[in-house]
Amino acid sequence: MRRTIDWADDAVVIIDQTALPGDFRLLRLRTVDQLVDAIQRLAVRGAPALGAAGALGVALAARQNVDVEAEAGRIANARPTAVNLAWGVERALGKLGQGPEAVLAEALALLDEDEQLNETASRHAAEVVLAECPRRPLRLLSHCNAGRLATVGWGSALGVVWHLHARGLVEEVLVDETRPLLQGARLTAWELAQENVPHRVQPDSAAAAAMARGLVDCVLVGADRIAANGDVANKIGTYGLAIAARHHGVPFVVVAPSSTVDKTLADGTGIAIEERDARELTEYAGVPLTPPGSRVFNPAFDVTPYELVTAVVTEHGRFVP
Amino acid sequence: MRRTIDWADDAVVIIDQTALPGDFRLLRLRTVDQLVDAIQRLAVRGAPALGAAGALGVALAARQNVDVEAEAGRIANARPTAVNLAWGVERALGKLGQGPEAVLAEALALLDEDEQLNETASRHAAEVVLAECPRRPLRLLSHCNAGRLATVGWGSALGVVWHLHARGLVEEVLVDETRPLLQGARLTAWELAQENVPHRVQPDSAAAAAMARGLVDCVLVGADRIAANGDVANKIGTYGLAIAARHHGVPFVVVAPSSTVDKTLADGTGIAIEERDARELTEYAGVPLTPPGSRVFNPAFDVTPYELVTAVVTEHGRFVP
Repeated sequence: MRRTIDWADDAVVIIDQTALPGDFRLLRLRTVDQLVDAIQRLAVRGAPALGAAGALGVALAARQNVDVEAEAGRIANARPTAVNLAWGVERALGKLGQGPEAVLAEALALLDEDEQLNETASRHAAEVVLAECPRRPLRLLSHCNAGRLATVGWGSALGVVWHLHARGLVEEVLVDETRPLLQGARLTAWELAQENVPHRVQPDSAAAAAMARGLVDCVLVGADRIAANGDVANKIGTYGLAIAARHHGVPFVVVAPSSTVDKTLADGTGIAIEERDARELTEYAGVPLTPPGSRVFNPAFDVTPYELVTAVVTEHGRFVP
Repeated sequence: MRRTIDWADDAVVIIDQTALPGDFRLLRLRTVDQLVDAIQRLAVRGAPALGAAGALGVALAARQNVDVEAEAGRIANARPTAVNLAWGVERALGKLGQGPEAVLAEALALLDEDEQLNETASRHAAEVVLAECPRRPLRLLSHCNAGRLATVGWGSALGVVWHLHARGLVEEVLVDETRPLLQGARLTAWELAQENVPHRVQPDSAAAAAMARGLVDCVLVGADRIAANGDVANKIGTYGLAIAARHHGVPFVVVAPSSTVDKTLADGTGIAIEERDARELTEYAGVPLTPPGSRVFNPAFDVTPYELVTAVVTEHGRFVP
C-alpha cells in the first residue's frame, strides 16, 4: 500500500498507526463507528490524513442506509483541533445531492490532491530551508509525525526531508520522540528508516540542549490548524521548540497544505485544544508510570504565535497572514 | 525507613528507585560491586543522595579486605556529572588513616548534615519564591525529582514545596514526567501523593504551554553540578524549561546544597555530560518504541547558563557567583 489511507472494496483502508513500528497492519473500516473509533484512538492521525478520513467517512455513510448528515457531524467532531477533519467532511458532504458515487469521487479527488499539495508545499519549504540555513549538509529537527503517515502519501514537514535527502543535502534528522504517544519515535523514525535517512531519536526535552550544542540547523513541523494571523496549533511541545529555536537563532519552519488554514479564526486564542485521556501518561503497556490517583495535564496540542515562526509554507509558497 | 539511603547491619540500605511507584522495596548493598551497579542503573540517584552513596561506599570498602583507594575511584566514577558523588567519596576517604570506623562515622555525619543542609537551603529558597512570586496560593513546576528520594531525607527543590505546603501556600505542583526514566511521574508524583500535595503530571513538552496559559508561578529544580559562575547542570530538559520560563517572565529557582557547587569549574562548558543507554529510548517494559536500528541522542543532563536563572539557593542563601 502506497498510501496511508485509501478506499478499497467498499471500505476505508488505513495503516494502523498504533501498531507501528512493531507491526505493519492494515485496518479495513466498514462503518462510521469503526472510522470514528480509529480517529479517536489515533489509528489514523495527522491533520491532512484526517481530512482524507473525514471525506472517506462521508462516502462510507452515503453508501449505507443511515442519516448521512448526522453521521458526518459525528465524524467531524471525532477530534476537535485539526481543521482538516471538518473540512474533508464538508467537502464530501457538498456532493451528497448527486448521490453516493459523487461523494466517493469527491473524496478520492481530495486524496489525490492531498498528495500533490503536500509534495508541492514541502518542495517550496525545502527552498525556504536552503535559503534560511547556510550549512551543508543540513541537520534538521522534527517533532511528532508530519510524514507520509500524517498525510495521504507524501508528507508535509517530513516531505521537506524527502526533497532535501534526494538532493544529498541531509546529514541527520533529530527526531523528538513526542510524548505521550511517541509519534516521533514510532512513526517518524520508521519513515526515516524506510528511506535510509540518518536520524537519531531524542527525548523531547533534549531539543534545546541539541540546539545549544549547535546540532540543529532548522526545525521543521507540520500543523493541525493555522489561524488567519499565522498562529499555529500543532502537537504539544511545538511551542516550547519554537521558543528554544528563537533563543538560538535557529529557523523554525511550518509546512502544511492550505486546507490547514482556518480563515474564520483571527488568531490562535480561538483554537480548541483537545485534552487527551489521563492513561496516556499514567501507564505504558500496562505498567503504571504514576502513583494511583495522580492527575494529569495532557493537552494534545499547543499554539505557537506567528512571531516565533520563520515561515509557514503551503502549496502556494510562504503564507502571508 | 525515614531516609532514602542509610547504613544498617554492615550494609548500605537504599529505597530501590527503579521499583517506584509500583513497589516500595529496600535494597541492601553489601559490596562495592552492588553499590556501583545500583548507582549506574539509578536505583539510587539525585546529586545529594549520590554524595551519601559515595561516602557510604567507601565505608563499605574500608571494612572489607580490598584496595580501598581503587574501590573509591570506581565508586566516584560510576556516574560522571553529579559532583557530589566524588565529593562524598573524597570526604570519607579522608578518614581512611583513622580506620574503617572513622570512615563510617564520617559517612554517617555527611548523611546527617545532608538532611539539615537541604532543609535549610529549601527554607531559604521558599523565602525567595515568596519574594519573587506575588500570587497566592502558588502554582509550582517541578522537573525530574529533587525530593526526599534525591537526597538523604528532605529534598532540595521539592523541599521548598514541603515548606510552602506546610504554610498552606501551594495550590498545585505541575510535575514534568521527565523522560526517559520518568523520575517526575514515578518519584516526584509519589512523594507529592504521600504528602497530599495537589499535583498533575504532564509531558515535559507541555511545560511551555502551561506557562503560556498562566498556570505556573515559579519553576523549581535541583542541580547535579553548579559551576563557579552559577551555570547549572541538571536533568535533561532543565535548560529548555529555563528558556521558556524567561520567555514568560516566570521565576526559575535552583535549590541545592553547597556541595553541588564545583568551584574548580569556571563555567558550565567544562561539565562532563553523561550519555545514557539507547535502550532508555528504544524500549519500555520490553515493548519497542523505535524501529530496529534507530540511533538515539540521550544526554542525561544539560547546562543552564546562570543568566537564565533567577536564583541559585544553597544552605547559605542566594548563591553569588
